[in-house]
Amino acid sequence: MTGEDRLLAAILGGLPPGGPPVLVGPGDDAAVVAGAELEAGLLLTVDAAEEGVHFDRVLHPLPAVGRRAVAAAASDIAAMGGRPLAALVSVVASPGDLDAARTVMAAAGRRGAELGAPVVGGNITRGDRLGLHVTVAGRMAEGARPLLRSGAWPGDALFVSGPLGASALGLELLRDRIGSRSTDPAESPWVRAHLDPQPRLRLGVELVGVATAAMDLSDGLALDLHRLARASRCGAVVEAARLPLAAPAKLEAALFGGEDYELLFTAPRGRVTSRMAAGGAAWSGVTRIGRVVSREEGVRIATPDGRSRSLPPRGFDSLAGGEP
Amino acid sequence: MTGEDRLLAAILGGLPPGGPPVLVGPGDDAAVVAGAELEAGLLLTVDAAEEGVHFDRVLHPLPAVGRRAVAAAASDIAAMGGRPLAALVSVVASPGDLDAARTVMAAAGRRGAELGAPVVGGNITRGDRLGLHVTVAGRMAEGARPLLRSGAWPGDALFVSGPLGASALGLELLRDRIGSRSTDPAESPWVRAHLDPQPRLRLGVELVGVATAAMDLSDGLALDLHRLARASRCGAVVEAARLPLAAPAKLEAALFGGEDYELLFTAPRGRVTSRMAAGGAAWSGVTRIGRVVSREEGVRIATPDGRSRSLPPRGFDSLAGGEP
Repeated sequence: MTGEDRLLAAILGGLPPGGPPVLVGPGDDAAVVAGAELEAGLLLTVDAAEEGVHFDRVLHPLPAVGRRAVAAAASDIAAMGGRPLAALVSVVASPGDLDAARTVMAAAGRRGAELGAPVVGGNITRGDRLGLHVTVAGRMAEGARPLLRSGAWPGDALFVSGPLGASALGLELLRDRIGSRSTDPAESPWVRAHLDPQPRLRLGVELVGVATAAMDLSDGLALDLHRLARASRCGAVVEAARLPLAAPAKLEAALFGGEDYELLFTAPRGRVTSRMAAGGAAWSGVTRIGRVVSREEGVRIATPDGRSRSLPPRGFDSLAGGEP
Repeated sequence: MTGEDRLLAAILGGLPPGGPPVLVGPGDDAAVVAGAELEAGLLLTVDAAEEGVHFDRVLHPLPAVGRRAVAAAASDIAAMGGRPLAALVSVVASPGDLDAARTVMAAAGRRGAELGAPVVGGNITRGDRLGLHVTVAGRMAEGARPLLRSGAWPGDALFVSGPLGASALGLELLRDRIGSRSTDPAESPWVRAHLDPQPRLRLGVELVGVATAAMDLSDGLALDLHRLARASRCGAVVEAARLPLAAPAKLEAALFGGEDYELLFTAPRGRVTSRMAAGGAAWSGVTRIGRVVSREEGVRIATPDGRSRSLPPRGFDSLAGGEP
């Protein structure tokens, strides 16, 4: 066995077994997943987590690096209204950093199993910096149509699924506490939100047939709303006073802080309020934050004094760098 | 739009459209692929190509880097007896190297389209070294069972699908000619075999119901045969005189040179010879090279003088490094 074979066998062989629908797991040329329930559509997405860009080893414990990367990719499946099915993890690590690679990949495997996306394959390659690339495949339920970014229509209401800025706040707390070495950062719910995001999988499935457009908030509300508006050829107005800030997060963090992994969606207002009134845990935290307008009006933020200003498409850019 | 958005839109938007079965291509949270023909099973595999490990920019033109990575992942689908369906490409590049990232990703997209695996999603992340991670999803034909590594049985004959050592020879020629700057290396069929490998997709599909075990040769016959033997709990004897060397490749290159992407498979001898006798382009180049024996006999190579020696499980290891 090569070094890679041994390491992969140790990591992937030690994970909880996938069970159905995984027919062949890691170790063959490709994994085989039963396709019986895939008729409504196969979803495919890939996310990268690169040291120094998406994470910083001083701030992020290695298991969190693996868990976050899988959660981020699973969140894309949630945003389509699908259910995760299986994951593949490709890790790059320096020869002196194989223990780190092992920890990250094992954590990714556990998180995948929790989210219904068992890791069915992967590889480890020598490189300079630690990085991982997580593919998640998902499926649509029978008869369900995927939630695209492109279906919003002027007059639709605009919603988010939970507090904004929690992840940015958690990152700030981690930085402060690493400096002072005071209390255990894991105590804070915002730190937990940053280190172990919870993709909104149940809500995503419920949004099928309700939302006209949806996406997940990975790079900050401002930037992601511009993406949704562009895909839908619409504008949008966010009411600043309605934004569910992760107190004590500032408006700035809610607008421009990334990695909240809440869902941003549009729908005729009544469709959502009736679901929310009927209760159901999946709808908890859903908040109306504004409305879809015509493309000419652009993407704006309105303040309680009745004024509005343009909302810049600013947020996390994995090429430009920025926040790790 | 962020830098990544712009770059991805420019690259992925400029590729040939996927067409059916791709329902939603790049640009949304996840791609959507029609699942109507997936009932017999979904195949998933990921392959990495890291600068300095799998390729060297002096030897490998950037388009070849993209084409090879997609072909390598598609070859895994061939080895399962499936057909490629879609690909995802995750690229890492330094900020000064975005033109290279663009070239590699565009070439990957074109190669994917040629092989029936249109690139339906991807991302570009800042990093130190150029690297790409290619996921290919594939499907089994209706009623077909995937070809695993684990079904070989003592008494089966052992086959390869074509010449061995071609890629290693091509790499050697590239090195020689880069040094001397003499003739155009693209003239040589071995250089072409190295820079633009052809996964054996048609043969893979034909092997379903014929082969008892199969895999693709990515890391050299010796190492890959050990993997097949271990998965099947068997031994194997290779007859040195029967190996189809890519002349003037040496036996050494045929045994230990990687990246030939031919198929290695086992089957009752008569099943294959009858197919070969019936003709058919997919079977061209198939050669019987030995036989499956009991586990206790190990993995061996027999020479024409009637002797045999143990074949070491040596080849390409993406962790240990070695040949770029």
